Amino acid sequence: MNESDLEARFAFLAEADKLKSVERANTLIDLSRQENSAEHSWHIALYAMVLADQAGPEVDIGRVIRMLLLHDLVEIDVGDVPLHSGDGTAHDSAEIQAAEARAARRIFGLLPKAQGNAFLALWEEFEAAETPDAIFAKSLDRTQPLVQNLASDGEGWTRFNVTYENVVDRVGQKIKRGAPSVWAFLHDRLRRHFGWMG
Amino acid sequence: MNESDLEARFAFLAEADKLKSVERANTLIDLSRQENSAEHSWHIALYAMVLADQAGPEVDIGRVIRMLLLHDLVEIDVGDVPLHSGDGTAHDSAEIQAAEARAARRIFGLLPKAQGNAFLALWEEFEAAETPDAIFAKSLDRTQPLVQNLASDGEGWTRFNVTYENVVDRVGQKIKRGAPSVWAFLHDRLRRHFGWMG
Repeated sequence: MNESDLEARFAFLAEADKLKSVERANTLIDLSRQENSAEHSWHIALYAMVLADQAGPEVDIGRVIRMLLLHDLVEIDVGDVPLHSGDGTAHDSAEIQAAEARAARRIFGLLPKAQGNAFLALWEEFEAAETPDAIFAKSLDRTQPLVQNLASDGEGWTRFNVTYENVVDRVGQKIKRGAPSVWAFLHDRLRRHFGWMG
Repeated sequence: MNESDLEARFAFLAEADKLKSVERANTLIDLSRQENSAEHSWHIALYAMVLADQAGPEVDIGRVIRMLLLHDLVEIDVGDVPLHSGDGTAHDSAEIQAAEARAARRIFGLLPKAQGNAFLALWEEFEAAETPDAIFAKSLDRTQPLVQNLASDGEGWTRFNVTYENVVDRVGQKIKRGAPSVWAFLHDRLRRHFGWMG
């Protein structure tokens, strides 16, 4: 450890502060405002603690939590890309992925080299969604907005014209893949919510 | 795992959403607004990842991160108690501690019993600041606002009439106890900051 090493780490941690100003599509449960990506990251790390035993035995929950703490930092450059655009247009997924990869290299590149590479590798693992840790982490990233929407009586779904089928397709499949028991529980509530609405 | 068990966990996670509305004394680095306790919790968990090797070898960084994710939930009931009151009055520390202990029992009590007890024990360990994990966690909880203040040119210190001696006494001692090398680095910057201020 030397001076410039800590200097670089604090530069990264100061840069990370900007994630608190990235606005997401979903709101707080009390509908007072949009959620930001930093507090969302905190919330899903807490989800990982609370729902740890819903993961398969091969999942390392400590790695999942570290992945979740990092996963949205690229939004400092790219912003949050909402899942449900509301007007039927498709986001250009390849373009967004390339922009996020550039952002990851810039932001993790602020760290001392070995640490920056380790963080970048963890972010890439999350994005690829192939390892058990990443699959579980992705399922929590989809679970939290769904729970926020259910708890605020579907306000966000109504606003973006989201249907029961949209939620099952865009959210449910990913939750089910990493946490089938959580999906079974939420799917039941989802059916009741859209039943009541319709 | 049964239905009511997941019901209780999601009730806890929905309650936790309220931490996003608890305002802290310090601001974001860009001074655009006050920081809230949820995004602060995220930020210091990230500090733990980045500064993990500054902890002693007996520190389990995964436990530190979990402690930090939980540590401010009591503020949902009690609010954030600023370190520097700015008018010289002392906060009644015993009264605040009792209120926080009540809040911890209520909030962690929303969880299934075994999990709630485990979370409560982790929170109590953080509060007691006696184990290596808790001592390191506490040092990060003091490091982040100091870094925010330095990065925003001491705006928060100026506003609350905080002196160099105040920071060394109320912040520096706790950082030094858990992370002496981090304190050595920051102490140097602090001296320069207050030197420049006059």
